[in-house]
Parts: sequence; structure tokens; C-alpha cells
Amino acid sequence: MHLELLSNINSPKDLRQLDPRQLEQLARELREFIIDIVSTKEGHLGASLGVIELTIALHYCFNTPEDLLVWDVGHQAYGHKILTGRREVFGTNRKLNGISGFPKRDESPYDTFGVGHSSTSISAALGMAISSQLKGDFDKQHIAVIGDASIASGMAFEGLNHAGVTNTNLLVILNDNAIGIDPSVGALKTYLTKAKIGKKPRQDNIIEALNFSYEGPIDGHDLPELLKVFERLKTIKGPKLLHIITKKGKGLKQAEDDQVRYHAPGKFDKTTGEVLPKNNEGLPPKFQDVFGLTLLELARKDTSIVGITPAMPTGSSLKFMMEEFPDRAFDVGIAEQHAVTLSAGMATQGHKVFCTIYSTFLQRAYDQVIHDVALQNLPVIFCIDRAGLVGNDGATHHGVYDLAFLRSIPNMIVFAPSNAIDLRQMLYTASKGLEHPIAIRYPRGRGTVKEWQQDFKAMEIGKGLKLRDGKDLAVLSLGSISSEVEDALNTLDNSFSIAHYDLRFLKPLDEMLLQSVFDRFENIITIEDGCIKGGFGDAVLDYAQTSSYKGRIHKLGIPDKFIEQGDTKELYDLAGISSEKIKDKIKAVLNP
Amino acid sequence: MHLELLSNINSPKDLRQLDPRQLEQLARELREFIIDIVSTKEGHLGASLGVIELTIALHYCFNTPEDLLVWDVGHQAYGHKILTGRREVFGTNRKLNGISGFPKRDESPYDTFGVGHSSTSISAALGMAISSQLKGDFDKQHIAVIGDASIASGMAFEGLNHAGVTNTNLLVILNDNAIGIDPSVGALKTYLTKAKIGKKPRQDNIIEALNFSYEGPIDGHDLPELLKVFERLKTIKGPKLLHIITKKGKGLKQAEDDQVRYHAPGKFDKTTGEVLPKNNEGLPPKFQDVFGLTLLELARKDTSIVGITPAMPTGSSLKFMMEEFPDRAFDVGIAEQHAVTLSAGMATQGHKVFCTIYSTFLQRAYDQVIHDVALQNLPVIFCIDRAGLVGNDGATHHGVYDLAFLRSIPNMIVFAPSNAIDLRQMLYTASKGLEHPIAIRYPRGRGTVKEWQQDFKAMEIGKGLKLRDGKDLAVLSLGSISSEVEDALNTLDNSFSIAHYDLRFLKPLDEMLLQSVFDRFENIITIEDGCIKGGFGDAVLDYAQTSSYKGRIHKLGIPDKFIEQGDTKELYDLAGISSEKIKDKIKAVLNP
Repeated sequence: MHLELLSNINSPKDLRQLDPRQLEQLARELREFIIDIVSTKEGHLGASLGVIELTIALHYCFNTPEDLLVWDVGHQAYGHKILTGRREVFGTNRKLNGISGFPKRDESPYDTFGVGHSSTSISAALGMAISSQLKGDFDKQHIAVIGDASIASGMAFEGLNHAGVTNTNLLVILNDNAIGIDPSVGALKTYLTKAKIGKKPRQDNIIEALNFSYEGPIDGHDLPELLKVFERLKTIKGPKLLHIITKKGKGLKQAEDDQVRYHAPGKFDKTTGEVLPKNNEGLPPKFQDVFGLTLLELARKDTSIVGITPAMPTGSSLKFMMEEFPDRAFDVGIAEQHAVTLSAGMATQGHKVFCTIYSTFLQRAYDQVIHDVALQNLPVIFCIDRAGLVGNDGATHHGVYDLAFLRSIPNMIVFAPSNAIDLRQMLYTASKGLEHPIAIRYPRGRGTVKEWQQDFKAMEIGKGLKLRDGKDLAVLSLGSISSEVEDALNTLDNSFSIAHYDLRFLKPLDEMLLQSVFDRFENIITIEDGCIKGGFGDAVLDYAQTSSYKGRIHKLGIPDKFIEQGDTKELYDLAGISSEKIKDKIKAVLNP
Repeated sequence: MHLELLSNINSPKDLRQLDPRQLEQLARELREFIIDIVSTKEGHLGASLGVIELTIALHYCFNTPEDLLVWDVGHQAYGHKILTGRREVFGTNRKLNGISGFPKRDESPYDTFGVGHSSTSISAALGMAISSQLKGDFDKQHIAVIGDASIASGMAFEGLNHAGVTNTNLLVILNDNAIGIDPSVGALKTYLTKAKIGKKPRQDNIIEALNFSYEGPIDGHDLPELLKVFERLKTIKGPKLLHIITKKGKGLKQAEDDQVRYHAPGKFDKTTGEVLPKNNEGLPPKFQDVFGLTLLELARKDTSIVGITPAMPTGSSLKFMMEEFPDRAFDVGIAEQHAVTLSAGMATQGHKVFCTIYSTFLQRAYDQVIHDVALQNLPVIFCIDRAGLVGNDGATHHGVYDLAFLRSIPNMIVFAPSNAIDLRQMLYTASKGLEHPIAIRYPRGRGTVKEWQQDFKAMEIGKGLKLRDGKDLAVLSLGSISSEVEDALNTLDNSFSIAHYDLRFLKPLDEMLLQSVFDRFENIITIEDGCIKGGFGDAVLDYAQTSSYKGRIHKLGIPDKFIEQGDTKELYDLAGISSEKIKDKIKAVLNP
């Protein structure tokens, strides 16, 4: 690959040496470079391809990093990373000890704000802009680049609503490609679409109503137009919004044609663009599909079942129900707060609401879980996907706080299936009606059980399970980390005799089972793929104290620090919860 | 008090028997009744007075409770409660075992959704409306009444954005009085104000952009007009918004003139309207004022200090800084998510940001604390007011989860001052620059220390304190509940010798101090005014396990259930953390 221009660009300073007429070539080279690397190393693709021209124009026209640029979500920032000194290390993207898949302050002064979750950019950039103003710097530019899916989230509205009454140098660039990970939804999207099909919103448009100067819409792939508009916008004081239209996946035909698949396509052939077939045959199913397909089965039999997802129909596999029952399964957009309270509203009317949210995004709706669901004891069924360490998305996306933050909430049932069958049976059990809200949390990726489509059978709430007997020590696990424990015990020197219990429920705890463990074992190891402070291990400690247990309890879990990106197995090792680390712990406890 | 009409109204059925011409008299009687009771029993006043006509018109025109009515926040629902069968018990409003100050599902079928926190009504009512539609009921009406401060919160936007693409029978009534608890802020407010001063927004207004039918603005105190509009709106299908203009405090001159004070004025003279003077002389200051006044002192000396509040300038006492330094202290409206990320943005530029949020509302920004502040280790200073049990506002407002949900977050320092001096000194310490974000949590109301304005002196992070020595048992407390412990120990039979330690920091824990306690005592009681699961007691248990402590630890804290309203002291007793209950516990532990 010969990158005549790109190979000489080690910072935006180099970029700014180019003649404007060279930028289109640079755009081609940047696309080629991204496609080349992502095709083999994997990662997010479509979003970055869609903002190549925007990225070049921003760094060309604005004086980064003095001017402050914030990317919303940040999976579209590959071009930005490559142009700001990280071309050589871009092959380590999303790998352990490599660069992050998202902008990150530690990594570069050009990454002014760490991102990952959506809709933070306006608030962050506004904060920077107010700071500049307070310091008497009235020339510095502050730019938030936000997509049309992200700007429809409540937090972005809060930022706009505040910015509109300031006179800060804030430029919001609305990157309108009509899609987040799945196609955008909602009334605002419908409104924006009018602009795109030529019906330019009137002067009195929704953005101007919030006291922003509005520019656009313009073609976000038209470099000369972008350069021209940016130069003009620099001279306009106060908050302003530029509406640009782009195509996600731009420059790779397959990615343009199948934007959902090419959001993060995995490995693909960089010349043909074809995604390389994965041989999934014979593999156990993904947890998300066990959820999505089981829910579909249940929904066929029970018309009172509804499903809700905030912007993750594909990722959560709610799409199966959405396809067959479009009236009863809802994508509400990036709106976790609304999703939870909407669920509560429907639950008051007797609907059985399965609300599926990724663990890390449920943090956005913590108050609604407490105030609108648990306080009213409404039996909403939270299906919490991507719980635990999620792998290459890294620190912003790990779902490691849910056990702790849900344990504190009265009325909640908190269940973590250790395998696909338990997940399936709990979905069934919940569909039959529970007296409380329930959180069912399960990890990203595949389980270990292939024959998961068993006949439905109700589970007993609060009942744990002995998986194997032993006499030297008991391991108590919660959720799918159980399989690491089994791997450990299966490969441990057989001079050790170790019992393994799957508690299944963080809440209510199976106190009878725990008591039987306390009665027999002097050493107990608890293990969870959640934060060590406040979760399962603490719950066991709490009950141990209540029952005057005299032995030792050793907690394993995510240590009290943020865990970066890497393969999940690598991260388990880093966090001390891999099968190897479990074996080490057992040996250390028994042979101190 | 002779209430000719009101005394015969025990449900909206009775109301609907009246002639429309009688409703204005009823409005007068309802105002009189509310003023009569609230003047002596205390409670929220201005908001309910502002919606008397609206409340009567809603229950008169709509078929409640078959038609579903959701009040946002709910402190304006006194008229609603009185007209729906709770007139006789209204004197128990906000009291222990009385009726709640907010709508509550357990209390009445007319309370369709429990509220307290703002901006949930649109999501909840939309959920109900979708449920009705799925059940084939196309006539049922679903009404959300929301104020102009609440509708500017992101969550409300999320609800509107979703509702706009449905064809549900949803009526949003925007009760525009230009004030929440403090005057409303933000660009949307400015926009709405244009409508009020006669510049009716054009057809293409911000509400219609979201695909709602827009009606108004109309005078919300004009009963005939309200009746007429409601009858017409019943016939319009799909989402619609009615913009009404009301005056908070309507009908009581003082309340109209000083809307902030009369939001919840305490006792007042019902004939003159004058708030009865409280003799506060010689009392220790409120914690909020210790915060507000200390911050002002610090801000005078350090121009890099800024203050941020989401809609609580008066309640948090940030108003002192806002008055003297309006450029550096910000009310961002009901926008906790934005407030936290804005703080993070400013912190990246070197500002020292004091972000003050009530504990219960910080739940709204949990993700932003994790993702935008702690993950980037930005030294934002969270000043968390109304932590612990808040008294008469009840279950929706108690700030009892913060210790648990903050303990799980890496990089956070979590500090709970036991008195005003510690609060003051920590504000000073934080202003000097910390290496991490810090949460400083303190309760509603007054402390016990009068001489609080001492010279500034830096505190050592992570350092606890022995308050009194003893030999039989050690009590470990965190935060202002310390004074209950001291009350207990001061009145305990002096045959007991009890030590008392104020740990001050939940995180980092003073492990050296704890170790010294473990070395000396066989019995330890931990006490906190936070939820028993996941907080301070669990942190002590955790370290006890690590250090192989062999004694017994007894945890006191908020039990794992929702605590209703009452005086704080009554609630302490209910939760088992009052001085009396502490004494009982000590006796039970030492004389089992």
C-alpha cells in the first residue's frame, strides 16, 4: 500500500501544509488505510468511513489541539487518530495494551475528552467553551461532532438547551447519516429527514428555537464545501450548529449498502469488501440470541408480552421479536431513561415488559430503575446484556457495576444465569408473572451450552445450586463466570477436592444454601465478573457476618480500577478471575 | 371554614354533578382548603395553588380514573388528592403513616403513577397509552401534566421524541409558569416565553417539529376556556400538547409575589399570608449554607473556582455564589446528566468545579459520574446535599443509595462530614486541588456546631478520627449520623464503656485506624444513614475479612426497603439508626 500523502502526516501540522486540492487524495488514502487495517484487525468501520472528509476538514481548518474537538461516542474517530500521530500504532487498535477504540485523554492531546457512551459531546464541549470564556480566550473554537442518533438522546438536548443561552464559541456539527448502530428512530429524525430531502427547515427551525445559529444541510463528503463553511463559521460568535449529511460506510460499497452489518463487521476481504464467513456451526449460541429467540417464542404464546430496547435491536437480538411483532417490540432510540419509565408505564397496565439494555448503558437509567420501577414494585423484566467484561470496547463499555448498583435497590430480584438454559428458563419464569421487578444479567458472546432449546420449566426464585461437591474448599460463583471456575477445577491437580456452587441469585440470596456451605467449609472463594466493591462477594460476606461464620472468605472480582480493552480472556486474567487465576487462588488459600 | 361545594365532593363523580358555572366557586373553596391546611401543617404550596383550575377541569372533563392522569413531580397534586377522596385525611399530608406529599399508586387508583423526581410523566403516560392501544382501547385518554422546568429535562425530550412517532391518545399539558422551585432557565424557556408575551409560535414550532399537535397558549386559570379546549382535544387523535400559562401561588398574593419562598413556605398566617417567623437565632447553620457560604469565601480568593447546580440554587445555597459571581456559578436547569459532564468538560480546562446535586437526583447522573468524571480521573468536586433520610418528602427523595453507588466507582474519594467544620475544611481542601474526583455528602437541615467559621486547614484524605475511647465495644460511624451516636453514648447507662470512631471517608477507608479497632475490640457496630447493602458497613466487613478479624461486626443502616415520609427523627427510629435504637443495639450486643 503506497500512501503518498498519508505516510508523511504525523500530526495536523503536516496536514495543514497540504494544498487544499490534495485533500481529496488524502481522503482516499485514509479510507484505504482504515479499510486495510480494520479488514484484518477488526473494529468499527462504517462510522469512520463516513466522516473521512469531515475529519480532514476539521483538522485542516481548525487549530487543533488548541481548538478543542470532541467526538461523540468516538467509534468514528479512527481517521482522527490516524491523522493525529497514531498511524503507526493503529494496528494495535482495541487490543490489550494498544490504543483504545475510542478517543481517550491519556492517549493524545488531540483527544480532548474520553468518550464511548453517546451524547456527552455537547455538554463536554460547552464546559470547555465556558472555561475558555472565563479565561478571557474568545478566539478558541470548541467543536462537538455528534450523530443524528446521539443528538436525539435527552442528555444532548440538555446540553443544547444550556448552550443556547450562552454566547460561547461552540460549534455543534450534526453528522446526519440517519443511523446509529441500527437506523435512527424518533420524531426528531423524521424532522431532520425533511431537511435532507430538500425541504430545508424554515428559519424558525427546531435548532434555531434553541437559539443556535443553524447552517446547512450540506454534503459532508464535499471537501471544498466543508472548508468554505468552516472558514465562515469561525467568524460567527455564539453557539452554532452545522448540519451535514453523510453516508455511513462511504467508500466501501458493501458498507454503504449494509450499514448495520458493517458497523463493526469483523474480518473482511479488503478488495471485495465481503465479510469473511465465520464458521459458527456447532458453536453454542450467543446469550443475546438465547434472549431474543426465547422472547419470540414466549411472545407468540402471550400477547401481553412486549419488548423494549434503547437503540440496540440488533445487538440485543430484540430484532427477532420486532420483525414478527412490530406492534409489540419497540426501539425507542438512545433513550435509556425513557425506555425504563416507558416500561414502568406499560407495566402499570398489565403488560409484561421485557426491557433489554446493555449493562453499561443501564447506568444511564439508574434513577428510573429505583424511582419508577422498584419503588412502585412494578414487575418489569430487565434483560441486561453485555454484563461483565466486554472485551475490546474497553473501559467505557464494561458492564461491571450492575451487580453492585442493583443489589442496593429494594424489591429487586437480581439473577445471573450461568448458562443459556438458565437464561431461557428465567425468561419463561418471569413471563409467568413475578411479584417484583427482576434484573437478568448475562454476558456478551457465546455460552458453553449447545442444547439450549429445552422445554420450559419454571425456576424457583432465590434458589442456588451445587454444581460439584468437594471437601477442601468451596467456590461460590454467580453467573457465567461459572465456566471459568469449572475450567479451573477440571484442570486442577486432583489432590484438591473443591466444591462449586452456582448461587444464581444475587438477590434474594440463597441463605439456606449458604448456611450449608458455612457449616462445612473453612475456606470459601467467591467469584464474580463484577466490581469487587458492593457486589456478590460483599453479599456473601454480609450473610456470613449475620450467621457468625468463623471461616475465611476470599473475594475474586473486578478490582477497584478501570479495566482497559483486550480479549475477554486476557481481561479475565488481568482482573484475576480467569481459570488460571482461580487455580492460583485455590492453591494459595490451601497452601498458604 | 364553610366549604359548601367541596365538602360534598368525595370523588370526581361528585365533581361531575356540578354545573360548570359552579366550578369557579369550587376553585375558591379548594384554594381556601389548601391554604388552611398547609398554613399549619406545612408542605408544598405554590405549585398546587397554580393548578387549581387545571385540576378541576381535568377531573370534570375526563373520565378519571379510567382516563389516566399522570402528574409530573407531583408536588402540585394537592388539589388532585383532595378531589379524589383524600380531603378528610389531607391533614396527614407528608406525616408519618399519613398520605404522601406526592401521587402514589398504593394510595389511590387516581394516582396512576408514583412521582417525585421530575420529567417522568411523558414516558409513563406514553407507556400507558401504548398499552391501551395494544389492548384495542382507542378512546381512553392519557394525560401528562408537566411544568416548563421539567419539560426542559432530557428525559422529557426523550419521551416527546418517541411519542411523536406514535399515534397514541397522549395529551401533554405544559403548565408554563416560568418557574420550577427556582426560576426556569435555558433556551427552551426563552422560546416558550415568546409565546407567552403574545408572539404565538408559528405553525412550524418546536413542539410541532416533534410531530405533536400544538394548542395554546391559553390562560390556565380560565375555567370555561379549559373546559372548551379539553372537550375539543378529546376528539383529536394522536399526540397533542396543550400549552397553558399559569401563575405559581395563584390566589395568595404573597405566594404570587415571592414564588421561590412560597414553594414550600413552612407555617404561615392563612389570613395575611405572612410566613411565620422562625426563631433560628443561635441555631447551628444548615449544612447547605455551610457549603454555600464557604464556597463563596473560597471563590473570592480563587478565580478558577466555579459552581454548578441543576435547578437548585436556593436549595443548595449556591445562590450566594451566583449572586456575587454570576459568571462563575451556573444553574443549568433540571439537567443532572448535563451538569456532571459540563463539570467534567470544565475540569479538563483546569477549572475547579464544585458541582452540587441532591443525593437522590445524582442517581440521574450515575453514568456521567462513572464515564465522564471517574474514568478520566477528573478532579470534579461533587457536593451532595440532602444525603440520608430527608424527612417529609419521603421515599422518592431520600438520599440513601449514594454511599453504595459511589463506593463501587474507581478513583472516587467519598467523604461524609460529621459536622459543619469538617464540611468547611474539606471544601477548602478540595479547592487546593486533589488528584481524584471527590464526593462530599451531607444531610438536609442543620448540624450541631455553631462555631463553624473556623480558619481554613487542610484535611488529610483517608484519615478517620477517634471521637471517644471505651473498652467494651466500638461504634464506627460515617457522616452526620455521628450525632445520633453521641446522643446515644451520652445517655447510656455509664456501666457501658463504648468507643466511637468517625471514619469520615468511605473511600479510601482508614485501614490503619480500622486495624487498631480490630486489634482492640471483639464487638463493633457500624452505622450509616445509607442503605445497608453495599455501603459503609459492607466496606468495613470487607476490610475485616482482608485483615482476618475474628470478632463480630453488627451493621446498622437503612434496611433493604423503601422508607416513607415522616420527621427525620421518626424515620431514624423506623430505620433503626436513632440514638434510642443505637442504645438498644449496644445493649443487645453486650448483654445478649
